[in-house]
Amino acid sequence: MNIIEIISKKRDGAPLNEGEIRYVTDGFVAGEITDYQMSALLMAVVLNGMTGREIVALTQAMMESGTIFDIGPGGGPLIDKHSTGGVGDKISLILLPVAVECGLRVPMISGRGLGFTGGTLDKLESIPGLVTDLETGRFEELVKELGGCFGAQTDDIVPADKKIYRLRDATGTVQSIPLITASILSKKFAEGISGVVIDVKCGNGAFMRRAEDARMLSESLEMVGREMGIGVSTVITSMEQPLGSAAGNALEVIEAVSVLRGEGPEDCLELTNLLVSEMLLLGGLVETLEEGRVRSADAIATGRALERFHRIVEAQGGELDLSDADLGLPRAPVTRPGRAPRSGNLAMIDPRTMGEAIRELGGGRMRMDDEIDPAVGFRIFKKKGDPVLEGEAIFDVHARNDLDAERAVRRMLGGISIIDEPVSSPQLFL
Amino acid sequence: MNIIEIISKKRDGAPLNEGEIRYVTDGFVAGEITDYQMSALLMAVVLNGMTGREIVALTQAMMESGTIFDIGPGGGPLIDKHSTGGVGDKISLILLPVAVECGLRVPMISGRGLGFTGGTLDKLESIPGLVTDLETGRFEELVKELGGCFGAQTDDIVPADKKIYRLRDATGTVQSIPLITASILSKKFAEGISGVVIDVKCGNGAFMRRAEDARMLSESLEMVGREMGIGVSTVITSMEQPLGSAAGNALEVIEAVSVLRGEGPEDCLELTNLLVSEMLLLGGLVETLEEGRVRSADAIATGRALERFHRIVEAQGGELDLSDADLGLPRAPVTRPGRAPRSGNLAMIDPRTMGEAIRELGGGRMRMDDEIDPAVGFRIFKKKGDPVLEGEAIFDVHARNDLDAERAVRRMLGGISIIDEPVSSPQLFL
Repeated sequence: MNIIEIISKKRDGAPLNEGEIRYVTDGFVAGEITDYQMSALLMAVVLNGMTGREIVALTQAMMESGTIFDIGPGGGPLIDKHSTGGVGDKISLILLPVAVECGLRVPMISGRGLGFTGGTLDKLESIPGLVTDLETGRFEELVKELGGCFGAQTDDIVPADKKIYRLRDATGTVQSIPLITASILSKKFAEGISGVVIDVKCGNGAFMRRAEDARMLSESLEMVGREMGIGVSTVITSMEQPLGSAAGNALEVIEAVSVLRGEGPEDCLELTNLLVSEMLLLGGLVETLEEGRVRSADAIATGRALERFHRIVEAQGGELDLSDADLGLPRAPVTRPGRAPRSGNLAMIDPRTMGEAIRELGGGRMRMDDEIDPAVGFRIFKKKGDPVLEGEAIFDVHARNDLDAERAVRRMLGGISIIDEPVSSPQLFL
Repeated sequence: MNIIEIISKKRDGAPLNEGEIRYVTDGFVAGEITDYQMSALLMAVVLNGMTGREIVALTQAMMESGTIFDIGPGGGPLIDKHSTGGVGDKISLILLPVAVECGLRVPMISGRGLGFTGGTLDKLESIPGLVTDLETGRFEELVKELGGCFGAQTDDIVPADKKIYRLRDATGTVQSIPLITASILSKKFAEGISGVVIDVKCGNGAFMRRAEDARMLSESLEMVGREMGIGVSTVITSMEQPLGSAAGNALEVIEAVSVLRGEGPEDCLELTNLLVSEMLLLGGLVETLEEGRVRSADAIATGRALERFHRIVEAQGGELDLSDADLGLPRAPVTRPGRAPRSGNLAMIDPRTMGEAIRELGGGRMRMDDEIDPAVGFRIFKKKGDPVLEGEAIFDVHARNDLDAERAVRRMLGGISIIDEPVSSPQLFL
C-alpha cells in the first residue's frame, strides 16, 4: 500500500477499503504519513465524500488508535451525550448528574471551546480547584464510584482525532459530514459506552447552519452507530439564539446550578429532560420518552441531581459554595447593560455575534493554546419574541474593564434586531 | 488575507482573484504558508479546477517568484520548445541546433527524468564533462554567443514551481491541467522568450493518456500565452510507442547525432522539422510551415546543425568524439536481444513498459535524488505495424549485468504483442 495511490484513489472518487483507511490512520499517527499528504487526502474527502462503509471504517480505525475505556459491569447502562456545540450550551453540566440519578452511568469526555463556541471543560474549570485532566484509571474509578464524571481527552484517547483535527482546523477541511461523524463517534465510542445521544445544533450559532446539513449529519451518525452496534440517537435543536440566559464560562455554571435547583431557565430544563429521556430509552431503563421525562424532572425536583453534581465536582477537586449567589466563582469587575435602542419585539439576538464577543472579551479561544478568562460573558434578559421597551436592558456584559465592556455592548447590539411586528418565539426542537 | 479563507473559497468552488493567488504563491515560497495548507489547496484545485484568469494569474505569480532572463537584443527571435515528456523523446537535443541554424535563439531550460519518462538534462549529461548547471550570467552569455544552450533549472528560476512540484509529486496532485499549465509556462516564460512551441505527448507513454486531456492542456497553454502576450503553439503527438529507435540516456544522444547526420530515424526527423517550422513561424522568420520545414531540413542536410550541436556541447564542457560510433559515451557491459516469440505483425511495443524497465535498469529515477546510469537502455529494431519473424530481435537491452538484462528483456516482452492481422503504423501527429 502506498499513500500516494490512496490519495489518488479518493481524488478520483473511488471509495477506500477498510485496509487503506486503517493504513492511513495508523500511518498518520505514527508519523509515517506526512501532514501535507494527510491534508491533501482530507480535502479530497471533503470534496468527494465518503460512503457509509468508509465512514464506519474511519470511525473504527480512529477509535482504535488509542485507549478504549473499560468501566466494567456493576452499575447502570453506560450512556453518554454529546453536543455539536453552540453558544450558551451548558446542558452537559446539568444533564450528567440528572442521568446518573436516573440510573445511568455517564463516562463523559468533553472538549474545550474553539472559535465562537464554548466548551464544557472550560465552563467546569471556572470552578476553583476543579481538575478535568484525569488519568484513565482515575476516570474509570470516578465513574464506578459516582456514576459519572467530567473528563478531558488525554493523549491516550483517540490520538488520531487530535492530530487530524488540528490539521483540519488549519486547512479549511472542517466542514465534512464524514469527517465530523468519525471525529465525534470515535471519541465517544472510546469511552466504552453502549449508547450516546447527540444534540445536533443547527442555526447561526452552530457549525451546521442549515437544517439540511444537520439532518445529513444526524443520519450519518445514526448509520455508523447501527453498523458498529452502539446505540446512537440524535436530536436536532435550534441555535438561532443563545441557549438559556447566560453565556460565558462561570456564568453558565451558575445557570446550570439554577436549573438543577428547579429555577430554570425553561429552555435549558426542557432540553435536559428531553436528552436524558433519550438516554434512558437508549439504556433500556424506560419504554417511552414521556416516562424518561418524568424521571428526569423528578431527579431535579427532589434536589438529588444537584447533590450528585456537587459530589462529582468535589470528587474532581472543585470548590462550589452553594450558599453563595455566585457559588464562589470568579466574577468580572465590570458589568454593563445593553439597552434596547427602540421599543418593539425582539426579532434577533444573534448567537454567533455573542460567541465572538465572548471570545473578544477573553472568554474563548482563537487558538488552542490561548488562555481564557472564566468570569467574562453575557447574561440575557430577553429572548426572541419578547416585547422590549426603549432603554430596557436586553442583556448585560461582564468584562475585565470599561473599554472591553463598551466594545462588547456595541458589538452585541449589532446582532440584535427589534421590529414592530409580532415575532413568534422559535421552536427549540427541529 | 488569510490562507484558510483562500483554501475554503477554492474548496467551495469559487475562483480566486489575482491578489489571492499571488498571496499564496509568495507566502508559500517565503515559508509562511505551510506544506499542508498548500497541499490542501492543490487538491481543491485538482478537484474544482481553475478559470482561465486564475491559470494566467498563477502562471504570472509563479514566473515572478524568481529570476527572469534577459538575453537582450542582437540576434534572432527568442523561441523555445518544450515537450510534456515521453519515452525515447530526444527531440530537444536535435532541435535546438537546427533552430539556431535557422536564425532563432533558443534559451532552453530543461528538466530531469522522473518515473517512466526521461529528461533532456540526463541525456546530455551522459556526454563526459558536459555541465548543465549554468549560472544565469553564463547561460545568457552562451545564448548570445552560440544562439542557444542547454540549461538546468537553478534555485533562482521559478522557485515556486520547484517547491510546488515536489509537493504535488507526494500528494497525488500532479494530474491537473491548470497546475500543469502554470508549471510549464512559468518556467518557459522566465527564459525571457517571445514564444514557445509545446509538444503535448499523448498516449500510454505520456502523462496525458487520453486525447481529450491532451487537447484540453493544449487549449489551456495557448490561452495563457494569448493572455500574457507570449506566443504559444502546441502540437499533439502520439506516444503509443517509443519515439525513434533508442531509449536510455547515452543511446539517445547517439541517436540524436544520427538524426543530425541525416541518418534518421524518420519519426525523429519528421517531428524535429515540424517543431522547428512551428518555432520559425512563431518567430516570424517564415510565413508557412512548409517554408519552415524546408529550412529545418536544409540545416540538417548541410551538416550545419551537427556542427552547431558540437560547438554548444563543447562550450558546455562536453567531449563528444564524432569519429567514434559510440561518440565516446559510456556503454553498458551487457547487451541482450529481445526476440519475437512468434511471427506476425507488431501490434504493440508499450512505451510505458519500456520507460519503467529503463528505470529498473538504473537509467531513470524513482525519486529526485536517485543517481542514474547513463549507459543502460534499449535499442528498438521494429516499430508498430512492422512484420516480424519468430526469433527475430525486436529490441536489445543494454544493462549493467546479466541478471538486469534478463529481467529487462522479460519485462519488455510483456509489453509487446504480435498478431496475425495487419497493423497500420500509428500516426505521429494527432
